[in-house]
Amino acid sequence: MGTKGKVIKCKAAIAWEAGKPLCIEEVEVAPPKAHEVRIQIIATSLCHTDATVIDSKFEGLAFPVIVGHEAAGIVESVGPGVTNFKPGDKVIPLYAPLCRKCKFCLSPLTNFCGKISNIKSPASDQQLMEDKTSRFTCKGKPVYHFLGTSTFSQYTVVSDTNLAKIDDDANLERVCLLGCGFSTGYGAAINNAKVTPGSTCAVFGLGGVGLSAVMGCKAAGASRIIGIDINSEKFAKAKALGATDCLNPRDLHKPIQEVIIELTEGGVDFALDCAGGSETMRAALDCTTAGWGSCTLIGVAAGSKGLTIFPEELIIGRTINGTFFGGWKSVDSIPKLVTDYKNKKFNLDALVTHTLPFDKISEAFDLMNQGKSIRTILTF
Amino acid sequence: MGTKGKVIKCKAAIAWEAGKPLCIEEVEVAPPKAHEVRIQIIATSLCHTDATVIDSKFEGLAFPVIVGHEAAGIVESVGPGVTNFKPGDKVIPLYAPLCRKCKFCLSPLTNFCGKISNIKSPASDQQLMEDKTSRFTCKGKPVYHFLGTSTFSQYTVVSDTNLAKIDDDANLERVCLLGCGFSTGYGAAINNAKVTPGSTCAVFGLGGVGLSAVMGCKAAGASRIIGIDINSEKFAKAKALGATDCLNPRDLHKPIQEVIIELTEGGVDFALDCAGGSETMRAALDCTTAGWGSCTLIGVAAGSKGLTIFPEELIIGRTINGTFFGGWKSVDSIPKLVTDYKNKKFNLDALVTHTLPFDKISEAFDLMNQGKSIRTILTF
Ligand SMILES: [Zn+2]
Ligand SMILES: [Zn+2]
Ligand SMILES: [Zn+2]
Ligand SMILES: [Zn+2]
Repeated sequence: MGTKGKVIKCKAAIAWEAGKPLCIEEVEVAPPKAHEVRIQIIATSLCHTDATVIDSKFEGLAFPVIVGHEAAGIVESVGPGVTNFKPGDKVIPLYAPLCRKCKFCLSPLTNFCGKISNIKSPASDQQLMEDKTSRFTCKGKPVYHFLGTSTFSQYTVVSDTNLAKIDDDANLERVCLLGCGFSTGYGAAINNAKVTPGSTCAVFGLGGVGLSAVMGCKAAGASRIIGIDINSEKFAKAKALGATDCLNPRDLHKPIQEVIIELTEGGVDFALDCAGGSETMRAALDCTTAGWGSCTLIGVAAGSKGLTIFPEELIIGRTINGTFFGGWKSVDSIPKLVTDYKNKKFNLDALVTHTLPFDKISEAFDLMNQGKSIRTILTF
Repeated sequence: MGTKGKVIKCKAAIAWEAGKPLCIEEVEVAPPKAHEVRIQIIATSLCHTDATVIDSKFEGLAFPVIVGHEAAGIVESVGPGVTNFKPGDKVIPLYAPLCRKCKFCLSPLTNFCGKISNIKSPASDQQLMEDKTSRFTCKGKPVYHFLGTSTFSQYTVVSDTNLAKIDDDANLERVCLLGCGFSTGYGAAINNAKVTPGSTCAVFGLGGVGLSAVMGCKAAGASRIIGIDINSEKFAKAKALGATDCLNPRDLHKPIQEVIIELTEGGVDFALDCAGGSETMRAALDCTTAGWGSCTLIGVAAGSKGLTIFPEELIIGRTINGTFFGGWKSVDSIPKLVTDYKNKKFNLDALVTHTLPFDKISEAFDLMNQGKSIRTILTF
């Protein structure tokens, strides 16, 4: 029986308080309860959201907490009532649940699930399991979950509504990226913006999400994809992945939106903002064409002053929307994306700039915060 | 030949300067040039936009000007090259052109036309004919057009791209409302919000546009239509036209959006803001459901501080858009709406609260500004 039904002691990175570095600690991971699955994490990446919440720049996060939400692993054991997973299954934990029961899950119009209760403060959502308790303990204290995933731990427990079973031959050190960044950017272009063949697109921010959005625009058949970033070192990769033009606002003598409007003779069909700051959202909206210009907000920046819009800007035919996990019905779609990756429909490998042992997680955060990495894969 | 080819002297209401009352004057209306049509206005209504531009609360309007943009009349004569109109035709002047040549007109995705050049300052658009001159003169001075229509004149000249020929038996004292308010509100629900059968809607502002939006929601099959206004005297008419609930924010002890969210168990499918103020736009967005909530901005309020949005508000599945002339391809759609009115598909009559001779135009503005009228029809 091995570890089934027993508490597992393992390594995890704990954020004891806001603004303090993560500490690698030994934690105790309780067995899964009803409709829960305990997973051995094999590879986890990190994204800006993890850094932002640790710094407590989003309101509402409870400490101590184990963050991390972009990972892949193997089922160790399942709790009562779990029918879709068995020990040994390769899986991807998902912060986007699919309960299959709520009015949202039952609708084809959205991938939002009613299990996400705290829509105004997403960082604090799913910090406890459904019975309002945690499965993590460290030094005798309960430790909070994060987004229902908590992947910065060698073992974690997730609800069976927040888990996708994937192909047995999936490369976990790559498909872990489907847990957040890639799926969000790629899906935002395909499912939310609904980029059309022959269209012109602008993607603001060329980090992991932005590069994935570029791939999404390309997969959707866009004929022109303009990538924008204030770090020109990102341009080579963006072009390799499908960007036809790259612009650095700091190199221009006019506002970026004016340059894009001139380049495209009136504005792009689709703008995707992966940065989330007031300035980039403004530029993204401004650079869309009259008639049918679509602006999709993907990035959420801490401390942003938002985007102030006027009806005059929309009555000429523009639409603004957003994306939640790229619009994918999470549990059902991620296995298909794993297969698509295997069939080389998109290039996850290009997003991976570094691979480090889990113990070097602080180094991975430094690389990200300094703009030196796109994605670092941490392995246990 | 009558008046054809000659200057016509007639009555018009002139705004000599910003913020001053309109003056009824004798004006000279030059014959139509190439691709222009001179029209005898039989009935004109007025909308808040007319009042707002006269007060110069929108930037960019040139004076002196003849405003008015919601009218119906009869073709007096046509200029060279006009093939779709002949003297005696009943017509509705349209501020929304349909040139049939630009990329917008050639696309099914929009009713916006590239002839509207000044999208940032719509009030100042189409103040001159295509040759950059005016057809109006008063006391020896040229007088500017307004939105390509200038219907506060017994005769006006419009481009043949801004004119719809309608049924010979159309009642001009009613179908004049198709020139702006009715078409905008009704079409915003049907074409822009794309209200679906069985859905729940909230309409903010129950003036002429809002009541028309209520009719549009009903025509689209909405099963619940919540009308909101700070003037409860508007509720009886709103209910007669399709509103199932009416709420006055001033009678409530909580913010209107919270009340609507409770009433609808999570928010409406479609919110339409016909007021344009920061508060109503905020309430309209807030009261839409997660998953697929759609917020359509219809009203443009002078001096509004706009709506400040955050990505978090949209990533849960909401969309914000706007409407230009209700999304109707103007010249092609208005004749069909005239026929629909004749076939009693909607109730224009309910919008008409007053009929006055044109000379009493100031009284008509007073009635509107005091909230005592929905629409006043002025006849010559
Ligand atoms: Zn659900
Ligand atoms: Zn993420
Ligand atoms: Zn056109
Ligand atoms: Zn109007």
